[in-house]
Amino acid sequence: MGIILLRYGEMALKGQNRNEFVRRLRQNVRACLKAHGLRGEVSSTGQRLLVQTEQVEEALEPLSRIFGLVSLSPVAQVERDIEAIIAECVRQAEQAGVGPEVSYRVQARRADKSFPFTSPQINRLAGEAIQRALGGKVDLSERAAVTIGVEVRHEAALVYGRVISAPGGLPMGTGGRVVALISGGIDSPVAAWMMMKRGCGVIPVHFAQNEEETQKALDNIALLGRYSYGWTLHPRVLDQHELIGPTIERLRALGEERWSCIFCKRLLLLKACEIAEEVGARAVVMGDSLGQVASQTLANLELISYGVPKPILRPLIALDKAEIVAIARRIGTFEVSTRSERGCAFLPAHPLTRGSLQAFRELLSRLEGETK
Amino acid sequence: MGIILLRYGEMALKGQNRNEFVRRLRQNVRACLKAHGLRGEVSSTGQRLLVQTEQVEEALEPLSRIFGLVSLSPVAQVERDIEAIIAECVRQAEQAGVGPEVSYRVQARRADKSFPFTSPQINRLAGEAIQRALGGKVDLSERAAVTIGVEVRHEAALVYGRVISAPGGLPMGTGGRVVALISGGIDSPVAAWMMMKRGCGVIPVHFAQNEEETQKALDNIALLGRYSYGWTLHPRVLDQHELIGPTIERLRALGEERWSCIFCKRLLLLKACEIAEEVGARAVVMGDSLGQVASQTLANLELISYGVPKPILRPLIALDKAEIVAIARRIGTFEVSTRSERGCAFLPAHPLTRGSLQAFRELLSRLEGETK
Repeated sequence: MGIILLRYGEMALKGQNRNEFVRRLRQNVRACLKAHGLRGEVSSTGQRLLVQTEQVEEALEPLSRIFGLVSLSPVAQVERDIEAIIAECVRQAEQAGVGPEVSYRVQARRADKSFPFTSPQINRLAGEAIQRALGGKVDLSERAAVTIGVEVRHEAALVYGRVISAPGGLPMGTGGRVVALISGGIDSPVAAWMMMKRGCGVIPVHFAQNEEETQKALDNIALLGRYSYGWTLHPRVLDQHELIGPTIERLRALGEERWSCIFCKRLLLLKACEIAEEVGARAVVMGDSLGQVASQTLANLELISYGVPKPILRPLIALDKAEIVAIARRIGTFEVSTRSERGCAFLPAHPLTRGSLQAFRELLSRLEGETK
Repeated sequence: MGIILLRYGEMALKGQNRNEFVRRLRQNVRACLKAHGLRGEVSSTGQRLLVQTEQVEEALEPLSRIFGLVSLSPVAQVERDIEAIIAECVRQAEQAGVGPEVSYRVQARRADKSFPFTSPQINRLAGEAIQRALGGKVDLSERAAVTIGVEVRHEAALVYGRVISAPGGLPMGTGGRVVALISGGIDSPVAAWMMMKRGCGVIPVHFAQNEEETQKALDNIALLGRYSYGWTLHPRVLDQHELIGPTIERLRALGEERWSCIFCKRLLLLKACEIAEEVGARAVVMGDSLGQVASQTLANLELISYGVPKPILRPLIALDKAEIVAIARRIGTFEVSTRSERGCAFLPAHPLTRGSLQAFRELLSRLEGETK
């Protein structure tokens, strides 16, 4: 039976309800194992979770996508005996490739302070043993190529040589529900992922323009699902033409087609708020990034948000395109997002870049007057 | 006379008005030099800016804080002659510490394609010359410890061995104006900085609770000013007690003190919107991060935002505390933010963590009824 040690950020717990945090995290770890057909027992110990499983290697990658975890390590469990610990450190160092050209360090930590050797003593003894057995350069800094970790617990000692990073954030389900608008582009799946990272259960809403784009959105929602252990993403697909067509036609008839994008986005947001109300979500998430394209101005943001009854969360608002692309690559949505698609059929030749609030209000009341 | 080469991200230009972007950037570079009492000439060339100055070393650090720039290098200008270029590459490599243990690479780029040597030829010839003169290991990957750059232009060639990174983003002033709420804490200066990074001129607003906290806010605004070349930060300080005191007292009289924080934050936002209207700002920036403290829930965000007439931008909404702290350290505000201060005098014993919208509305109309 193998063991995986899961670490969560202590910083994330500040002000959080610790019990709720850990309970959700355990629950999501179980959901993750189950989703991948893996068997394992999950338990808490100190500031860690432990997974006991026969399928350590298969479990590492899925577990590394659980929000609330900062890192994980497959560990060897040995007796609380200094010789056994040292021998396991040497074995782990060898597996991790320590040799004459490879720097390493040992970092021990005692959860049980009654163990007769202090952490610095364990570090020194194990470090010397590795030196004798494998060569290698000791480097006590963070630049060491290999870090061998030792955790001395009441029942046993854990030793590891690999640390796999996890995304941090808060456990799925601790953040409440949000509706996220998902298009076929790069930004919106990243925005949804970022709110998932803060523990939000996402209700993905896609406004369909054409088949290729809708398929991209659905494929990306499926990719996001690989991070959503403990919450199932049920996409809602609505017909964009049906929702915005009449408004666009009236704008055209008035010779005000350049307002199309502003009216369109606002209608999508209003519809998203209706859905939010229906499903108990308290906010709507969008992928807006200020200044990324000529129409993403503060002026347009103000008009698009005008009279929208729920908070609009824009986690990408201050990120550069390069930063957004880096996250999209890391979470795996970039490739789908950059598949070719037809553009928006409603895009006017000259969309407004800085609409005035007064002109917008006047146009809005003209359109609303017509429908009465 | 020395030369500094300034690079801006081509990605940032997508959809932007290129001329406006470069014009603002040049203007902000001049403002930066002037703010530090430095003399220099700024010119554009291809996808770069050049600063000619006698004070290269003094100018590097201030210039590295200009939004819109991704990196800068002090450069040597030499004749468009392959021997001169190679000799300068060796000199720069030596200055950068290339030697038997230090890996390096040469990266040439021809703005002028009529130059008789291609980029790969320049790389090879200069690389071999460095090898002969200094030893060193060629490493063509990004892991090379030293990269020697060569830019062949129409008038001359530029050679450099140092690349200093800059924050990216968009030039100050291209993003419009925002009001940013600045407290004495860690988050709000980071949120303001992030919107500055996207080119926004910030009007900092601080609601004063006590002298220590106000001093922290003002000190951090001064630190933010070091990034705000081309826009002067004029802080507005308002008395928080005066603004929220009467409401808090009425809540206390009704036995509803646990609603204090929600009503307080909403009043601050409403006041910030008034100021925004006055100064032509189109949004209000806050440092909220979902779930960071027990009261930063989606439910509370919804109530705090209720009826607020301008868009609220929350660039930190999806960041972990560790990520926010890392930015605060990088921009220099962390130290000020963590100076001790008295807490808020109005903080109730048990602030609401998940207020209901209906209960909030009822309470709001009771309070508003009383004032009539």
